[in-house]
Amino acid sequence: MKNFISVHDVTDINALVKKALAFKANPLMSQSLGKDKRIGLLFLNPSLRTRLSTQVAAKNLGMEAIVFNVDKEGWALEFEEGAIMSGNTVEHVKDAAPILGSYFDILCIRTFPSLKNKEDDYSELYITQFIKYAGVPVISLESATLHPLQSLTDIITIQESLQAQKITRKPKIVLTWAPHVKPLPQCVANSFAQWVNAWGEADFVITHPEDYELSEEFTKGATITHNQDEALKDADFVYVKNWSTYTDYGKIYENDPRWMLDSEKIALTNNAKVMHCLPVRRNVELSDEVLDSPNSIVTQEAANRVWAAQAVIAEILGGK
Amino acid sequence: MKNFISVHDVTDINALVKKALAFKANPLMSQSLGKDKRIGLLFLNPSLRTRLSTQVAAKNLGMEAIVFNVDKEGWALEFEEGAIMSGNTVEHVKDAAPILGSYFDILCIRTFPSLKNKEDDYSELYITQFIKYAGVPVISLESATLHPLQSLTDIITIQESLQAQKITRKPKIVLTWAPHVKPLPQCVANSFAQWVNAWGEADFVITHPEDYELSEEFTKGATITHNQDEALKDADFVYVKNWSTYTDYGKIYENDPRWMLDSEKIALTNNAKVMHCLPVRRNVELSDEVLDSPNSIVTQEAANRVWAAQAVIAEILGGK
Amino acid sequence: MKNFISVHDVTDINALVKKALAFKANPLMSQSLGKDKRIGLLFLNPSLRTRLSTQVAAKNLGMEAIVFNVDKEGWALEFEEGAIMSGNTVEHVKDAAPILGSYFDILCIRTFPSLKNKEDDYSELYITQFIKYAGVPVISLESATLHPLQSLTDIITIQESLQAQKITRKPKIVLTWAPHVKPLPQCVANSFAQWVNAWGEADFVITHPEDYELSEEFTKGATITHNQDEALKDADFVYVKNWSTYTDYGKIYENDPRWMLDSEKIALTNNAKVMHCLPVRRNVELSDEVLDSPNSIVTQEAANRVWAAQAVIAEILGGK
Repeated sequence: MKNFISVHDVTDINALVKKALAFKANPLMSQSLGKDKRIGLLFLNPSLRTRLSTQVAAKNLGMEAIVFNVDKEGWALEFEEGAIMSGNTVEHVKDAAPILGSYFDILCIRTFPSLKNKEDDYSELYITQFIKYAGVPVISLESATLHPLQSLTDIITIQESLQAQKITRKPKIVLTWAPHVKPLPQCVANSFAQWVNAWGEADFVITHPEDYELSEEFTKGATITHNQDEALKDADFVYVKNWSTYTDYGKIYENDPRWMLDSEKIALTNNAKVMHCLPVRRNVELSDEVLDSPNSIVTQEAANRVWAAQAVIAEILGGK
Repeated sequence: MKNFISVHDVTDINALVKKALAFKANPLMSQSLGKDKRIGLLFLNPSLRTRLSTQVAAKNLGMEAIVFNVDKEGWALEFEEGAIMSGNTVEHVKDAAPILGSYFDILCIRTFPSLKNKEDDYSELYITQFIKYAGVPVISLESATLHPLQSLTDIITIQESLQAQKITRKPKIVLTWAPHVKPLPQCVANSFAQWVNAWGEADFVITHPEDYELSEEFTKGATITHNQDEALKDADFVYVKNWSTYTDYGKIYENDPRWMLDSEKIALTNNAKVMHCLPVRRNVELSDEVLDSPNSIVTQEAANRVWAAQAVIAEILGGK
Repeated sequence: MKNFISVHDVTDINALVKKALAFKANPLMSQSLGKDKRIGLLFLNPSLRTRLSTQVAAKNLGMEAIVFNVDKEGWALEFEEGAIMSGNTVEHVKDAAPILGSYFDILCIRTFPSLKNKEDDYSELYITQFIKYAGVPVISLESATLHPLQSLTDIITIQESLQAQKITRKPKIVLTWAPHVKPLPQCVANSFAQWVNAWGEADFVITHPEDYELSEEFTKGATITHNQDEALKDADFVYVKNWSTYTDYGKIYENDPRWMLDSEKIALTNNAKVMHCLPVRRNVELSDEVLDSPNSIVTQEAANRVWAAQAVIAEILGGK
């Protein structure tokens, strides 16, 4: 693996999941793989789980991890080619990226979308420019349109749960939109859809109110419906997530509280396991009742972030 | 020791002090105790000494320390059970704490009081919720009402000073209020009172202007007077600290500059050693003359923060 | 070496450059030199290259590096002796520095000038106070008037480039002022002038518009001209940098875009290598055309920051 930006960087999802679960069973089994190597974690946006789990994963591999909050500790970067930099941006990615590449063996980058200009966001300019100029492997810690470490974690958690429940048939997985208080990126939903489709071992349904259609680039292969109750029927896994509109970009069209996942909705499912990438707005996206029930596997899911990151870093270090 | 939140978590203060002084003599004597273990330092409020001394202590024990400034790098946490999170808080402690617990072997947390609602602050909701949900040992790096690592450091420093001065009789220790420019928490004063009372090997006097009474929960056992000069008479140690009012909560009632500790006041003492937790407002709380004199042991005191933290972490790692 | 604040702390520049290039060839050759030692990196101002390169350098020497952003994670420090601290400053350097000295074996500090009061800035009060009170060696990560790690890097890069080009004659080095969008410190220019003059192995020319004269303390020995084209003639190295006025302090008098270094200007030189400390405002200070050409060695220069820092830390650890 050269970079880790989307599911397209992975040749065998199940093999990567297996590797991650091996690390979960034995976190320090490859403690010398990263000896005398360094991983740089650059945040253009805030992070809790992603930052800490990636630091822990790197340490488990014997690597030195250095965090740099570009937004707070550094300055505004310029990403446009040919920019006349007489404004607020202080340094061009063409200058910053190769230098960071000289300091680190692997660069990890988090950068959010503007939610203002769809073309810009969906061109993935920021992370693409980093890859172009860094000269070392780049791992996405969430980009404008995708969150691949989260999605790998999600597949890991689903497989783990299937094994624990001894389910061998094809599970039904439902990705459902949920209400929120502000416009959020489509990244987690796009990425989850992309990975579940690429994995191919589930009946996959996406449900959301009208006007919240995601890009077909990621959803193609899933069944899409505006009827949440119907979607939830017999679900084995319900993935809850808010996103803002994609078509008329970055807006909140409707925020119907009845889309919140509560116990009544769970009753429609096959006693489904409930997932969420966190942070979650309790009693807005998901009810306390559900989150505090045995149906919720959100803590297990977030804890699995470590093993996803560790598997990806190990693949890159191993040059596979 | 399971958690370290107050003096009540300590079964033998003198044994813990002895352990700390052993680390001071030989910082790396337990360098393998924390091997392949991780300690997370979460700051909901800023810190210099506490953060750095705890990082150093962890490293001395061979542990990996990871700092996370929740206030700056993360987002606002919710602590109320049942909250409908449609406001400014982004993540509930019920979700954040168990995940942090999955990433770390020990969690350290700093969280300040609001100074607006006494009941809320004195319920220690934040740190109590962290302990409830983290699933791993929690160390307070200062909470709404207490600062136990500072107080342990203070007892260490007093014992060290007594030994250096070859004083074997019961020392007189005075905690005196001092002027300041803004309303401060009662934590350091509460905690110092709690620890000196629990230690029990001193004549302990607290002095402050009227209306600055601290909670009896912590001061019970000390002599309290509003006459600073009388209090300072024959003192061996003077602990200087400002705090805002407790009864009519979080206010500055009076700020008489004559309460500043200067050389004239020191002349009333038994050539007392002067202590302060730092940061100190020079020439407001304490005069330059005193701080720059041999009476001041504030630098030694702050340097001892490392050994206090190291003793506590070692106790927790040792499962004692 | 006791401290590293300016070229005056270096007894043999060429020996230090040689050491740095030896580390570049073999980064881990002294991996046990810093074992069980700690270096503290204090930032009163933001930093990218300086912070990361110094962290990497310390790790290469087996040292633990701890970063502390005083401006963001801590609070405002007081530097004036005798200050009555009833204002915004929370802690005096007299109290903070010795404690930091107790936590670390080496302290590194970045502190920028105010650009408001020349006497204050050029007295180097901040870093001088740190050295006075820290009790351990201090390394400047850029101070009010100088940036010695950058300048050492620059000499390293020039020597490396001369060797690569097999140039054995005395090179012509030109330091040229460039336009910018806001008033910048004189540090990099002062420091580069100081080091090239002390090194003594070049024909050294400084060029800038009228009114941008630097302090003679640093420039003495260089040829100074207001005619950029004349200065650039036959140059082997062109060091591009903006600075604000020194005489009438901290101002922008003129910002003529014709001072930007572009390909036409390069044509005047001896196919000069172009240097800049970064971050650089593209198409304001330097044209894209030049920065993206083989003439630019800015990435090599920034990557060399690691070896400069490593050589300096090693000298201090070695007590030489």
